[in-house]
Amino acid sequence: MSSTVIPASLSGDELIKKYIGAGTWAFIEDKFTPFGKETLVKVIRFVVDECIPAERLYHAQVSTDPAKRWKVIPEVVEQLKKKAKSQGLWNLFLSAKHYPGLGSPLTNLEYSVIAEMTGRCSHFASESLNCAAPDTGNMEVFAKYGNQQQKDTWLTPLLNGEIRSAFAMTERFIASSDATNIRTSIRQEGNEIVINGHKWWISGAGDPRCAVHLVMGKSDPENSNSHAQQSLVIVPANAPGVKVIRPMQVFGYDDAPEGHCEVIYENVRIPLSNLVLGWGRGFEIIQGRLGPGRIHHCMRTIGTAERALELMLARCTDQRKKAFGKTLSEHGTIVQNIAWARIKIEQSRLLVLSAANMIDKTNAKGAMREIGMSKVAVVNAALEVLDMSMQAHGAEGVSQDTMLAYAYAQLRTLRYADGPDEVHLQQLGKLELRRAPEVWEKLNKTQAISDALLAKAGIKSHL
Amino acid sequence: MSSTVIPASLSGDELIKKYIGAGTWAFIEDKFTPFGKETLVKVIRFVVDECIPAERLYHAQVSTDPAKRWKVIPEVVEQLKKKAKSQGLWNLFLSAKHYPGLGSPLTNLEYSVIAEMTGRCSHFASESLNCAAPDTGNMEVFAKYGNQQQKDTWLTPLLNGEIRSAFAMTERFIASSDATNIRTSIRQEGNEIVINGHKWWISGAGDPRCAVHLVMGKSDPENSNSHAQQSLVIVPANAPGVKVIRPMQVFGYDDAPEGHCEVIYENVRIPLSNLVLGWGRGFEIIQGRLGPGRIHHCMRTIGTAERALELMLARCTDQRKKAFGKTLSEHGTIVQNIAWARIKIEQSRLLVLSAANMIDKTNAKGAMREIGMSKVAVVNAALEVLDMSMQAHGAEGVSQDTMLAYAYAQLRTLRYADGPDEVHLQQLGKLELRRAPEVWEKLNKTQAISDALLAKAGIKSHL
Amino acid sequence: MSSTVIPASLSGDELIKKYIGAGTWAFIEDKFTPFGKETLVKVIRFVVDECIPAERLYHAQVSTDPAKRWKVIPEVVEQLKKKAKSQGLWNLFLSAKHYPGLGSPLTNLEYSVIAEMTGRCSHFASESLNCAAPDTGNMEVFAKYGNQQQKDTWLTPLLNGEIRSAFAMTERFIASSDATNIRTSIRQEGNEIVINGHKWWISGAGDPRCAVHLVMGKSDPENSNSHAQQSLVIVPANAPGVKVIRPMQVFGYDDAPEGHCEVIYENVRIPLSNLVLGWGRGFEIIQGRLGPGRIHHCMRTIGTAERALELMLARCTDQRKKAFGKTLSEHGTIVQNIAWARIKIEQSRLLVLSAANMIDKTNAKGAMREIGMSKVAVVNAALEVLDMSMQAHGAEGVSQDTMLAYAYAQLRTLRYADGPDEVHLQQLGKLELRRAPEVWEKLNKTQAISDALLAKAGIKSHL
Amino acid sequence: MSSTVIPASLSGDELIKKYIGAGTWAFIEDKFTPFGKETLVKVIRFVVDECIPAERLYHAQVSTDPAKRWKVIPEVVEQLKKKAKSQGLWNLFLSAKHYPGLGSPLTNLEYSVIAEMTGRCSHFASESLNCAAPDTGNMEVFAKYGNQQQKDTWLTPLLNGEIRSAFAMTERFIASSDATNIRTSIRQEGNEIVINGHKWWISGAGDPRCAVHLVMGKSDPENSNSHAQQSLVIVPANAPGVKVIRPMQVFGYDDAPEGHCEVIYENVRIPLSNLVLGWGRGFEIIQGRLGPGRIHHCMRTIGTAERALELMLARCTDQRKKAFGKTLSEHGTIVQNIAWARIKIEQSRLLVLSAANMIDKTNAKGAMREIGMSKVAVVNAALEVLDMSMQAHGAEGVSQDTMLAYAYAQLRTLRYADGPDEVHLQQLGKLELRRAPEVWEKLNKTQAISDALLAKAGIKSHL
Repeated sequence: MSSTVIPASLSGDELIKKYIGAGTWAFIEDKFTPFGKETLVKVIRFVVDECIPAERLYHAQVSTDPAKRWKVIPEVVEQLKKKAKSQGLWNLFLSAKHYPGLGSPLTNLEYSVIAEMTGRCSHFASESLNCAAPDTGNMEVFAKYGNQQQKDTWLTPLLNGEIRSAFAMTERFIASSDATNIRTSIRQEGNEIVINGHKWWISGAGDPRCAVHLVMGKSDPENSNSHAQQSLVIVPANAPGVKVIRPMQVFGYDDAPEGHCEVIYENVRIPLSNLVLGWGRGFEIIQGRLGPGRIHHCMRTIGTAERALELMLARCTDQRKKAFGKTLSEHGTIVQNIAWARIKIEQSRLLVLSAANMIDKTNAKGAMREIGMSKVAVVNAALEVLDMSMQAHGAEGVSQDTMLAYAYAQLRTLRYADGPDEVHLQQLGKLELRRAPEVWEKLNKTQAISDALLAKAGIKSHL
Repeated sequence: MSSTVIPASLSGDELIKKYIGAGTWAFIEDKFTPFGKETLVKVIRFVVDECIPAERLYHAQVSTDPAKRWKVIPEVVEQLKKKAKSQGLWNLFLSAKHYPGLGSPLTNLEYSVIAEMTGRCSHFASESLNCAAPDTGNMEVFAKYGNQQQKDTWLTPLLNGEIRSAFAMTERFIASSDATNIRTSIRQEGNEIVINGHKWWISGAGDPRCAVHLVMGKSDPENSNSHAQQSLVIVPANAPGVKVIRPMQVFGYDDAPEGHCEVIYENVRIPLSNLVLGWGRGFEIIQGRLGPGRIHHCMRTIGTAERALELMLARCTDQRKKAFGKTLSEHGTIVQNIAWARIKIEQSRLLVLSAANMIDKTNAKGAMREIGMSKVAVVNAALEVLDMSMQAHGAEGVSQDTMLAYAYAQLRTLRYADGPDEVHLQQLGKLELRRAPEVWEKLNKTQAISDALLAKAGIKSHL
Repeated sequence: MSSTVIPASLSGDELIKKYIGAGTWAFIEDKFTPFGKETLVKVIRFVVDECIPAERLYHAQVSTDPAKRWKVIPEVVEQLKKKAKSQGLWNLFLSAKHYPGLGSPLTNLEYSVIAEMTGRCSHFASESLNCAAPDTGNMEVFAKYGNQQQKDTWLTPLLNGEIRSAFAMTERFIASSDATNIRTSIRQEGNEIVINGHKWWISGAGDPRCAVHLVMGKSDPENSNSHAQQSLVIVPANAPGVKVIRPMQVFGYDDAPEGHCEVIYENVRIPLSNLVLGWGRGFEIIQGRLGPGRIHHCMRTIGTAERALELMLARCTDQRKKAFGKTLSEHGTIVQNIAWARIKIEQSRLLVLSAANMIDKTNAKGAMREIGMSKVAVVNAALEVLDMSMQAHGAEGVSQDTMLAYAYAQLRTLRYADGPDEVHLQQLGKLELRRAPEVWEKLNKTQAISDALLAKAGIKSHL
Repeated sequence: MSSTVIPASLSGDELIKKYIGAGTWAFIEDKFTPFGKETLVKVIRFVVDECIPAERLYHAQVSTDPAKRWKVIPEVVEQLKKKAKSQGLWNLFLSAKHYPGLGSPLTNLEYSVIAEMTGRCSHFASESLNCAAPDTGNMEVFAKYGNQQQKDTWLTPLLNGEIRSAFAMTERFIASSDATNIRTSIRQEGNEIVINGHKWWISGAGDPRCAVHLVMGKSDPENSNSHAQQSLVIVPANAPGVKVIRPMQVFGYDDAPEGHCEVIYENVRIPLSNLVLGWGRGFEIIQGRLGPGRIHHCMRTIGTAERALELMLARCTDQRKKAFGKTLSEHGTIVQNIAWARIKIEQSRLLVLSAANMIDKTNAKGAMREIGMSKVAVVNAALEVLDMSMQAHGAEGVSQDTMLAYAYAQLRTLRYADGPDEVHLQQLGKLELRRAPEVWEKLNKTQAISDALLAKAGIKSHL
C-alpha cells in the first residue's frame, strides 16, 4: 500500500492544475513567487496525504461520553500540528509585510489558494497549520494592538500553537449585528477591571486548551459617541466568574471539543493591565481585527465546494449504486448539475482571488467592494454545490458517513456570521449607488449630444 | 396564568381560519362534514395547547447519557397519547371506508388539514395521535395484507399504541431507489424462514418500544419477473440475529430514542407463518403500502412551514432585537421574504388539498399526477420558507433554541425518501408527454383550418 | 377535413378535464352551476375551434403599411364577435349580481376558468367575447358610477361591442404607481371642463373604434387630502386637442391597431356633464374600477401558460426535429422542465381559483390577500413556463412563428402594470406582519406553559 | 456644450477603472501591453463619446417605410466606420499572431475588454470597428481557408468594410444544432456548382451591402463519415436563385436593415472556384471558423449588462420619479438587486477574462472548458441583470425608449445560438465526469490510509 494519496512523481505544476484548474492557474501563475508556489504544493500534499485520511480518526477521537467530550483533545491534531510546523507550514495567514519577523511572506492571493486547500478538509486542517479562527483574528489583535507584556503572555504561545483562544463579542438577547447594542459591562474598580455579561456563540470556549478570552464590552455606555463606548479586555479562561454554560448546536452538531458556547461573565476581575489599547478603543479594534481575515472563510469555502463536487462525481459513477441498470451519471439531469457546480465554483474562486489581489494592491479597505461581493456570492454558491452533492448521495449525503451535511451546517452559519448577507448586499448596493450622480452627468451629456445630432439631421424625436 | 394557549372563547370557525387561512377555508369548507370540522378543531387545540408547549419537556426527557439514550421513552409522549385517545383523536389516518371497523370516517381532504396541524409540532404530535410513520404504513400493511393471526398479534397492539414498528427496506451498498437491487436473502428452511441482510435508515428500530420489523428481501432472486423476486416477512424485534448496529445521523441529529438505524439480520429465524400475503408478493405489498400515505409527509410539511413563518414574524418584530434602532421588519427586504413565504405555503397547501381531494374522488392511483406534484413542490417550498426563517433568526435559527434547523434537516430527507425529486419529476414529465400525440392532432387540425381561412382570404403565408 | 378541432363527440366533462385537468375539475366541479358548466364548454369550443385557428388570419389582416396600420380593423375580429354574441358568449365578465340586467350570472370562480380559456389565444379571444381590457374596467366604471345619460351614451354601445374605449391614467415623467403624482390638470371654466396633460401607455387609444377616453387628472391639486385632488372625466376620442402622439412598443411589438399610446391632451374642452360621479371622486373611482377585474389578467395568464406547455410538448416530440437521432424529449433534462411547468401551472391555477372563490364568498376587498398572492405568483410562474417553452423551440421560439415571444412580452408587462410585483409583495408582507402581536401572545403563553411543565418535572432550562 | 461625454482630463487609468472596475483592472493590468491599454482607452472614448450618443440617430435613420426599410443604410454607421478606421480602431478582432499582416497584435484578453466596451452600445459599435458578426467569422474563414483569389475577391473588401457578408447554415424544418441534419444540396455540374436549400436565421442577408453568402450544404450525403458529407461554398448575394423570403423577428424586432432572414437557394449556380478548401471539408471549416470568436458575444454581453446597471442606477435615483415621496433607491429591495447585479457582472467578466487568457496561453481547444462555462453563465447572468433593470424602469423598460428590451431580446437568442445552454452544460458535465476515475483512485487510497490509521489506534469503524 502506498503511504501517500498523491503520487510522488507528480510535478508541482501538474498538482496545482489538478487542484485549482489549469485555467485558473494560467490566469494567476505569474502572480506567484517561487516560495508561494512551493508552499502551495506542500500544503496540497499535506492536506490530501495527511489531513483528509485522518478525518475519521479525528472524529473517532472525539469522545461521545458527556463527561469527556469537552476535556479530551483528539491526539491526531497535535500530531499534525507538529508535522506541519516541521515543514514550515505554520502561521501562513500572518503577513510578514505587516508583522515583520512574525508571519510569512505570502501575498493574500497566494494565501487564498492555500486556504482553499485547507477548506477541503474539516476545520482541523487549518488548525494543524495554526491558521484557524478565532485564533487567527486574535493573534492579529495581539500583534497589532497588544503591548509587549500582552504579546509575551498571549501572542507567543498562540503563535507556537500551545494555547487556543476565544473572541467574546456576540450576546444573547440583543441583535449583535449592531455592535452598539452590546450590554456586557466593563468597569474599572481600583487597579482591577470588573466584567459582567452574557455572551453566546463564543467559538472555542469549550476547548480545554482555550486559555484566553478577548472580551468586548461597554466601559462608557453614556458616551455620546456610540463608537467610543466599548473596550476590549483580556480575560484568562480560568478566571473566577467565567462560566461556560452550554455549547450551542449548529443543526445537530456541537463541534466538541471546541464548541460555540454560551458564556456568562459574572463579576470577573482582571488586572488593569489586561485592557487592550486603551479605554474606549474596542470598536476600533474590532474594525481592525479582521482585515484580509474577512475572506479567509470564503477561501476555504471554495475548497469545501470542490470536495463536495469530487464526492458527487464519485457517487454518480459508483458502479455498486446502479439504479435501473444505470449509474446516476447516466440518468437524466445530474450531468447538468455537475456542470453548474463547476461553473459556480469557478466563478467563486475568481471572485475571491480578485478580492485577495485587490487587498494586496491596496488594502482591506480598498478592497471593500470585492470583499463584500465575495462574502455574499461564494458561500451561497458553495451551499448550492453542497446541496446538489447531498441530493446525489441520497440519505448517505445527510448522514455522518460523508462530510457533506456537516459542511453544509458550517457554511450555512457564514450567511449571517460577520454580518448577514442582507447587510453586505445593502452596503454593496449603496456603494454602487454612489456612482449615480456620475451616471446622471453622463446620461445628460449623452442626451445633449444626441439631441444635437438629431437636430442637425432634421429629425424630431419624442425622447 | 391561563392553562391553554388558545382562548376558550374562540369559535371553531374562527380557529380554523386562523390556522389555515380564511381564503382556503372558504374554498374547502363545503367539503367538510360536521365530524371532520369538529375533529379538526379538536386537533388544533390539542396540538397548540398540549403538544407544542411540551416540546421542551420532550427534548429534556431524551437522555444525553449514551447508556440511556436509546432505552428511555420521554414520559410526556405516553401521557399525550392517553389524552388524545380519550378525546377520540386516535388512528385518524386510517380510513374507515377502506378498513371498516378500524379507522376513522375522515376523508383524505379532511385528514390533510389535520395532519398539517400535527406538522406544526415535532414528530411527537403525530405520534400522540397514533398517526406517526412508519407505524401508519405498517398498520396499513397488516390491515390490508395480514391474516387474522398476524392482525391479532401485531395490528391490534399497534392500533392500541402499545408497541411500535419498523419497516426494513433500504439497504446499504446499493441504490435502494430501485427495489429490484435488494440483496437481503429470505429463504425457507423447513418450517422456518431464514433472513440475512444489511439494511440501514430503518426508522424506529432504535426505539425500545419497537416490537416488530417488516423486512423486505429476496426469496426468489432468479425469478425472471424481477417484481416477483421479493417477499415481505414479519420479524420480531427481539429475534436472535437482529442486530441494531448504529443510528444514522441526519445533519448531526440521531433522533433518539427512535433512530434511523443500520440493522444487520444475521441468520434470523422466524416461523413460516410470519410470511405476509405469500411468496413473491413483496413488491406488490410495498406498492400498496403507501396509498394516501404518500402525501402524509406533504400535509405535515405545510404545518412545519406555517410554524417557521410564525417564528419569522415574531423574530423580525422582536423589540429586544433591534439593530441600528429598527426591528428586522423595518429593514429592507425581509417583508418581501415574508410575502413569498406566505405565497409558497398557500400554493403548497392548495396542491396537497387538491391531491387529497383527488384521492377521495378516485384513489391513490387516480391521483398519481397530483401526488407527484405535491411530493416535489411542497417540500422544496417548505425548505425555502425554513431557510428564510433561519436567516431572519441569525445564529439562533440554526441552534437547538428553535425548531428550525431540526425541521430543516428532517424535511431535507424528504427530497429523496420515497423516491428522489428527480424520479418524481421524471414520472410527472412523462405523464405529461403522453399528451403529445393528442396535442399534435390538435395542432394539425388547427393548422388545416388556419390554412383554409388564409386561402379563403387570399393571403399567402410562410408558416 | 373536419371543420372543428375538438371532436363533436367529446362530452362536456371530458372536454373540461382535458383543458383544466381532472384533478382541478374534481376540486371545483361542485362550485359550478349547470349554466356555468355549459358556458365553459361553449367557450372552450369557441376558443379552440374558432379563435386559435384565426390567429394567423388576424395577424395577416393587420396592415404593415404605416399609413393603414392604425386605421384598419382585422375583419376577423368583428366576425368572431358576432358569432360569440349569437352563442350568448358576451359580456360574461360583468356580474349580474352587482349589475342586475346587464351582465351574466357567472360567479368569479366560474368566470375564472372561462377567462383562462380566452388566455390561450391572443387578446382577440377576449375581445371577441367583449371581455377585453380596458373596456371591461371602463364598462364597470360607467355601470357603477355613471349617471343615466353617461350610461346611455357610452355604456350601451360598449356593452354592444360597437365602440371601444381607453383609460388614461399613466403619465410620462412621473412615477405613476403613486396616483397622487398625477399632473394632468382638469379644471372647470364656466360650463366646460378644460383638460391639459401628458399621458402614455394608454391602451387602445390607437384603435379607430376607440370612441371615448376616461381621463384621470387633478381638479383640486391644493386639497390637503391628497386622495381628494383627483377627478375623472369622459373625453370623446375625437375631441379637439386629443393628440395621439405615438404607439409605445413592448419588446418591439406595437400592438396595432390598438396600441399603447402616448397621448397629449391640449386644452381639451368637454361639457361639465362629462364629469364622473363628482369633483374630487377620481381616486375613489379608480379604487372601485377594478374589483374582481384585478385578477382577470391572472386568469388569462394560466391559459397562456397552458398553451406554451402544449407547444413545448409538441416541439420536443417533433419527429422532424431530431438531433443526434433523438427527439428533444429523449434528451436529458427537458422532461424535468415539463414537469416543473406542469407544477407551476397547477399551483397558479389553484391560487387564482382560491382568490376568485374568496371574492365570491366575500368581495374584492375581502380577498385582498388572495388577489395579491395571485398577482405576484401567477405571472412570474407563467413567464418561467414561457421561457422554458421558448428555449425548447430554439430560434423559432423567439420569432413570429409561434405565440411564445409575443406572449412573453405581454406577460412581462404584468409584472409592473396595476402595481409592480414589489408593491404587491410589500403589501402582502405587511398584511402578514399584522399577525405578529397575536403570534407573540401565543409564544408567550406557550413559553409560560412550557416553563411550568419543566418546573414541575424539576428540569432547568437555558431557554 | 461639451462635445464629448468623457472629460478630456481623465487619465487612461482612471477611465479604465471607471469602466471595468478598479479591482478587475488591478487583477489584469499586468497582462496588458502599452498598445493594448492605449487601444482600450481609445475604444472607451469612441464608444462613449461617439457611438452611444448616435444611437437615437441610428434608429431614426432606419426607415419605417416597408419599401425602404431594407434598402437604406443608416448614414451614421458609415461615418463612424470612417472615424474608427482613422483612429486605428479597425479589425481589432483579428489576431496578427495567427494572420500576420492582417489583424491586430491584441491578445484575446485585451480584446475581451475592448469587445465589452462595444457591447455597451447597440450592435453598430462593433460594426463601426469592423468587428461585427457574422463578418468577423467569415473573414476568419477566408483568411484561414480561402485561396488567394477568394481572398482578393472577398476578404479584402470585407477587411476594408466595403461589403458585408452572411453565413448560411441554419435550416428550417430540421434541428440545426446537429449539423449532420443539414439538407441543402450542393452538387457539381460540369464547371459549376448547383445549390438548392432552405435556410433561415441568416443574419445580415437583408442588408443591401451584403455581397456574399458562405453556404453550408451536403455535397456527399451518402458518405459513411457523416462529417465528410458537407461542403462550404461562396455564393454572391446577387446570384440568380438567391431568394430572401422574409426577415425573422426576435420578439418584435426585425433588425432592419440587416435582418435574420429566411433564404431559399433555388438552383443557384456558381463557378467551381467558389468551393472553399475542398469537397467534404465543410464540417472542418465550421469547426475552425469560430475559435476565440466563440466568446466574442460573451465579452460584449458584459458591456450590455454594465449599461443596464447604469440605467438602473439612474432610474432609481431619478428625482422626477419619486413615488410616495421617495426615489426607488430609497424603497425596500432594489438596493439588493443592484448589489446582485454588480456581483453577477463581476463574476461574468472574470470568467470571460479567464477564458480569454486560457485561449492566449493555449488555444481555443485548450480553453474548451472555460469557453463552455462562459457561454452558459454569462448570458444567463446578463439576462437577469437586464430583467432587474427593466423591472426598475416599469413600462419604460420594455419600450423603445431605453435599450433594455431590445438588448434582452438579442441576448435571449444567445441561449441557443451556437449551441443551446443545455448542450454546453452537457459537454461541461461530461468533461468534469472524466475526472471520476482519478477521484475514485484518490478516494480508495484515502480510505486505505484512513483504515490503517484507525486500525493502528484500535478503533472499529462502520464506514
